[in-house]
Amino acid sequence: MPTPLADRTLHQATPGTPALAGDALAALVAELGPTWSVEGNRLRRTWKLPDFASALALGVKLGMLAEKLDHHPDLMISWGKLSVELWTHTVNGLSEADFIWAARAERIAG
Amino acid sequence: MPTPLADRTLHQATPGTPALAGDALAALVAELGPTWSVEGNRLRRTWKLPDFASALALGVKLGMLAEKLDHHPDLMISWGKLSVELWTHTVNGLSEADFIWAARAERIAG
Repeated sequence: MPTPLADRTLHQATPGTPALAGDALAALVAELGPTWSVEGNRLRRTWKLPDFASALALGVKLGMLAEKLDHHPDLMISWGKLSVELWTHTVNGLSEADFIWAARAERIAG
Repeated sequence: MPTPLADRTLHQATPGTPALAGDALAALVAELGPTWSVEGNRLRRTWKLPDFASALALGVKLGMLAEKLDHHPDLMISWGKLSVELWTHTVNGLSEADFIWAARAERIAG
């Protein structure tokens, strides 16, 4: 059994590493599950929430995760909704770090 | 002297009120100042900040303002940047409430 995504160590992608593509990308997408989607070179997820305060609270939790892992998404907070957009600047696309981050966020959001 | 925007009482726009337009809109835009811009039927501002944590911290402060005034913008938090987008759902455009909110946000952000 491979280590679950959320339990893997997040290594920052080094410059020059190619962005994920093809089978390697498809395998991580499948492992992460259907709540996340790849659009262009971004990994996205939206949570529906009961109100603004709940969206802000989840945004703060995921903001703390971003600082802890030193990997920072865009967070969009609005009434009843939190959206997250992830990518890896150094590879101009997606890296394993984005998928590990997403799996940890999934665990935090519950 | 009229009361400064940030000190006015925020009244929620009632359904059926027309969205601000023409001279009334232009006067509020001028009073709020050039850091905010009207794009379509939204009022927007972006703050440049030194890092992700600073953007999150300002997002939380403005999120608290949103709850206090019961008027909720969209907040976009990313590394070194916080963007705010305001509009009034009930008028499908801008109302004085958006400008009062923006003036208070300006004071909070300092």
